[in-house]
Amino acid sequence: MRTTVGIIGAGPAGLLLARRLHLAGVDCVVLENRDRAYIERRQRAGLLEQGTVDALREAGAGARLDAEGLEHHGVELRFDGVSHRVDFTALAGRGVTVYAQTEIVKDLVALQLADGPPLLFGAEALAVEGADGDRPTVRYRQGGRESVLECDWVAGCDGFHGVARAAIPAALRTTHERDYPFSWLGILADAAPSSEELVYARGEHGFALLSMRSPTVSRLYLQVPNGTDPGDWPDQRIWDELDTRLASGGDPSWRLRRGAVTGKSVTPMRSFVSEPMRYGRLLLAGDAAHIVPPTGAKGLNLAVSDVRLLARAFEELHRTGSTRLLDAYPATALRRVWQATRFSYDMTTMLHVPDGQSGFDRRIELARLHRIAASRDASAEFAALYTGLPLD
Amino acid sequence: MRTTVGIIGAGPAGLLLARRLHLAGVDCVVLENRDRAYIERRQRAGLLEQGTVDALREAGAGARLDAEGLEHHGVELRFDGVSHRVDFTALAGRGVTVYAQTEIVKDLVALQLADGPPLLFGAEALAVEGADGDRPTVRYRQGGRESVLECDWVAGCDGFHGVARAAIPAALRTTHERDYPFSWLGILADAAPSSEELVYARGEHGFALLSMRSPTVSRLYLQVPNGTDPGDWPDQRIWDELDTRLASGGDPSWRLRRGAVTGKSVTPMRSFVSEPMRYGRLLLAGDAAHIVPPTGAKGLNLAVSDVRLLARAFEELHRTGSTRLLDAYPATALRRVWQATRFSYDMTTMLHVPDGQSGFDRRIELARLHRIAASRDASAEFAALYTGLPLD
Repeated sequence: MRTTVGIIGAGPAGLLLARRLHLAGVDCVVLENRDRAYIERRQRAGLLEQGTVDALREAGAGARLDAEGLEHHGVELRFDGVSHRVDFTALAGRGVTVYAQTEIVKDLVALQLADGPPLLFGAEALAVEGADGDRPTVRYRQGGRESVLECDWVAGCDGFHGVARAAIPAALRTTHERDYPFSWLGILADAAPSSEELVYARGEHGFALLSMRSPTVSRLYLQVPNGTDPGDWPDQRIWDELDTRLASGGDPSWRLRRGAVTGKSVTPMRSFVSEPMRYGRLLLAGDAAHIVPPTGAKGLNLAVSDVRLLARAFEELHRTGSTRLLDAYPATALRRVWQATRFSYDMTTMLHVPDGQSGFDRRIELARLHRIAASRDASAEFAALYTGLPLD
Repeated sequence: MRTTVGIIGAGPAGLLLARRLHLAGVDCVVLENRDRAYIERRQRAGLLEQGTVDALREAGAGARLDAEGLEHHGVELRFDGVSHRVDFTALAGRGVTVYAQTEIVKDLVALQLADGPPLLFGAEALAVEGADGDRPTVRYRQGGRESVLECDWVAGCDGFHGVARAAIPAALRTTHERDYPFSWLGILADAAPSSEELVYARGEHGFALLSMRSPTVSRLYLQVPNGTDPGDWPDQRIWDELDTRLASGGDPSWRLRRGAVTGKSVTPMRSFVSEPMRYGRLLLAGDAAHIVPPTGAKGLNLAVSDVRLLARAFEELHRTGSTRLLDAYPATALRRVWQATRFSYDMTTMLHVPDGQSGFDRRIELARLHRIAASRDASAEFAALYTGLPLD
């Protein structure tokens, strides 16, 4: 098989890129290791920057998002007896939208299967070869049979564990990592959200996040030690601890609406950036090149902004024959990646309480939060970063 | 001897407090361990926030400052090929003034000796006693003879090594500290400043600061390893390294104006905060309670803002008999202290390059600097903190 752009991975990045290329008249093929049911079920992020919403609309995937997405105009920060709302609309001129990644995947899969380019499920990419030449290939296995996808370009949208990144020779790759001394215990619950907007709380003993998936489904998180067994956290204990931490804004009578817990999992946190994001005719996007801790809700949005840059670059190539934007991609994308990596890192350290945190560090992080509450400049900067920087 | 407010230490904090109390009609006595020549010679900070300038003017110590101080409306940041000016006046509505601490001390000493309350030189405070009662005392030795100063209140303005802080029982005191893995090698040089405004540079191998004392005297600093012997840095090596680091803004032809080096010293960097800042009738101000690394130029300004709060509190007590502001002092002062401590810490980590810094940390700190250069909100926040927050 032969195509212009071979896309590895049918997560939101790969699917959105395929859609944008299809609309621009650029030929492409998507290879996905898993089956459709699996990728439409994966629970992931759910908070979209305005730029992400716009990109989905432009790709024709905005109908259900517009109907079911929840627009948020701010978030609440609770800490040290303070409850402070950051008004995104007033400060940054834009808000965010709650709409689950898994729904985006469903919308994009439906579009692609209806009129899009080939999307091969159960097609496991084995290796990207010849990326430094004119004719890169993706070797893959489907139904027990190995095949080769011949491409002009390969887009590695295959996530952290994918094979695309490995096609860049180790000697040319630099990996930057930071692990965190805590994880998130997350639950999905059949309970109406206890707040219309997200609440980020720094309790004395750790972080808690009140979030939601829909008007009837709450998504809630607790900072827990790494290696925590979810079995040690019966539902009652989770709800009680969420109540305590979310009361850090100074309202000791704070109580969450509780409901049946339908999902429970522990996720470690990591910052990871692999440089460069391009090698010859191989381009990386999303988790294949970078991971952020979930605190700033940047993972999905960063994958989408990589794809927006890539789509624009391929559109220009198709229209004019110029590789100018493709050549600029690794630097342009990495600039955004590092800003989002920094923001995610800062938000994580500001809101979490590591075991044995020194009094100095505790007061420094509280001073940051107090400053956001006290200063228009500081909260405008927080709002700008949270709601997403312009594309370039 | 008996007084209303016994002040330990004739640095800028103690002297300014004495002056403000004198103008308000509050009786006080200043005890200073050293002699006049010594305190008028000590080289220290030299960058004043507008609030500090205003406080000195209100104390009648503004004449020479107004005549000789250099008003600055911004600073320059150089890093990663970028040279970015932060326009304080446009962003924060105020600037800063270059006027050496040693000159402030001279001005305040002259005023106090002309018409002020007693200022005892060579009077070594030995201990503050009875701070938890109604009649605290300062035991001191002068000319080989011990005496007792009886007070209503004691102001500990005696610096990090002073005795005042030790009068707070250890069980009630909490100390927060952070050492840094580098020091500053500073020089004074008879050379016209090579820039009208301060230049903060993050070079690949470390930090450099271009500052000045007057139109003919440059003050320059280099990040060096802790324990550096100034003897290992001949003048030529210092100038060459300053040239290299200050060229980080992308102008490889950058050259400093050089001149005779008249002073050379290595200073370690430390963050230190001791809580609380009040114990009974003992109040701490300035370095007696907190130390910041010099990067943000906050040390002197923080001492002066402590004194402004204290002076206001004593004025209210004198006028109305109310201790309301004195009671509020420890919390009000500490809020400012932690904001300045955080800013100094952030500016230090952002601009210095520790030995063996990881690629992750390097890129995070560069991302902060790039963001200040790119965003009005981020640079307005930087300008607000650098030029000094409002008193409360």
